[in-house]
Amino acid sequence: MTTPAVPAGNWLDELHFDEQGLITAIAQEVLTQRILMVAWMDREALQETARSGRAVYWSRSRRRLWRKGEESGNIQNVREIRTDCDGDVVLLQVDQIGGVACHTGRHSCFFRVLENDGWMVVDPVLTDPAELYGKP
Amino acid sequence: MTTPAVPAGNWLDELHFDEQGLITAIAQEVLTQRILMVAWMDREALQETARSGRAVYWSRSRRRLWRKGEESGNIQNVREIRTDCDGDVVLLQVDQIGGVACHTGRHSCFFRVLENDGWMVVDPVLTDPAELYGKP
Repeated sequence: MTTPAVPAGNWLDELHFDEQGLITAIAQEVLTQRILMVAWMDREALQETARSGRAVYWSRSRRRLWRKGEESGNIQNVREIRTDCDGDVVLLQVDQIGGVACHTGRHSCFFRVLENDGWMVVDPVLTDPAELYGKP
Repeated sequence: MTTPAVPAGNWLDELHFDEQGLITAIAQEVLTQRILMVAWMDREALQETARSGRAVYWSRSRRRLWRKGEESGNIQNVREIRTDCDGDVVLLQVDQIGGVACHTGRHSCFFRVLENDGWMVVDPVLTDPAELYGKP
């Protein structure tokens, strides 16, 4: 019987979680290569994401795991996970179900561009947020 | 004489800098749409970036402004600056001079992919780091 060179789970130890136990996670859409959102993950969120192939984040406001799409149905299927040279960010390549990643109903959370010393909204609302979250 | 509706500099106040006065900055390459790197900016770095059109970050290790490319020559020309719905991340669209953003000599800092519970290096070194930084 042989021991695997890299024991399962060990890959998490190569990452640098901050003092709150969190790491920055970027979701990039495979189809468009747009950055959809930036959120946080703890070890459990990242492990579940890797195992299940669906993006799970840590919600700092709600202080619990946040399975992306759990309310809106707009889940993210994860095709690839990368990390950077410092191991303090993870980059997910995702398929965004429903085409809307942002809670404002837009495709991406990065819908504001700096122009003439002001932030201009340049992307349309695709789905009414009330429809995303307000279902009775 | 009229007062501008949005006074110069005010756009910085709409962002959320953390308790260290920093905000996460992502550099995405215009040409390839790859994420090149993630770093930090303080207000001064972001203001200079917006004004000069060249990426300036805050180096946490050196505790000073870090004009990307100041040693290697691999500067980043900034074509667009976006922020997200929370205003706690900025996303730069950049042209990466020299084709190398990472201090390891690779195109992108995100050169490791999670495969079979381990991080696999999947991108080549394009420039010897000694050449980038070690010039006598």
